[in-house]
Amino acid sequence: MMSPKRIHHINFIVRDLDAAVAQYERTLGVDPFVVVDHPLRGVRAARSRVGECWLVLVCPYDAESVPGRFLAEHGEGFFLLSLGVEDLAQTIGQLASDGIECTDTTARAGILDWRVADIGKVHGANMQLTDDG
Amino acid sequence: MMSPKRIHHINFIVRDLDAAVAQYERTLGVDPFVVVDHPLRGVRAARSRVGECWLVLVCPYDAESVPGRFLAEHGEGFFLLSLGVEDLAQTIGQLASDGIECTDTTARAGILDWRVADIGKVHGANMQLTDDG
Repeated sequence: MMSPKRIHHINFIVRDLDAAVAQYERTLGVDPFVVVDHPLRGVRAARSRVGECWLVLVCPYDAESVPGRFLAEHGEGFFLLSLGVEDLAQTIGQLASDGIECTDTTARAGILDWRVADIGKVHGANMQLTDDG
Repeated sequence: MMSPKRIHHINFIVRDLDAAVAQYERTLGVDPFVVVDHPLRGVRAARSRVGECWLVLVCPYDAESVPGRFLAEHGEGFFLLSLGVEDLAQTIGQLASDGIECTDTTARAGILDWRVADIGKVHGANMQLTDDG
């Protein structure tokens, strides 16, 4: 399996996107966030670039969505880490042929036009792959 | 406040370092981890580089340490995100003069000879700064 090129993005779930954006910018000194709607997942999301990675704040408005259920169960905080891989379809196929079961067996539309596939929990943390070719 | 240069490292707490290292390498395809002891914090830690960032697995052997108590309370998973800043002392001073209370008001020794300062929880996620000058 080819090594991931970079950490593509890290998602944090928040209850109040405007408040979270303001606190992240003020406390962490990160560049201004850009907010987008992502109805496929029932969330508004905000992203800010830090080096080669994206910090993403995810605010569910659909309580039945995956992020919405995560918020209800765990509260605010880390949601997932997504690794950028050169060829997402090939990597998913490699994982399947290695006998590693993943949540997503094909790529799906992530926020911000990214193509992603969820691996699932790895020692307690949600991991994901993003097509970064 | 100057923008962070990069995500310096991301720490995940695990119960069994060898098992976690093996699963991270197999499932995520990351480069082999290097394991170090960090008695100041009561942990063994393993790091693997992904792009410009470090993925760090932290395994507490001291149940009374900060990571040990985190594991007891939350189980395995995300522990903290650390942003690399050009000048750590200056950034800590800037936060203080902006009225932002941080867990660490001076730099301390992190794992792997890094100089770090914990900010504390930001919307549910532990945030930290690493001297990256």
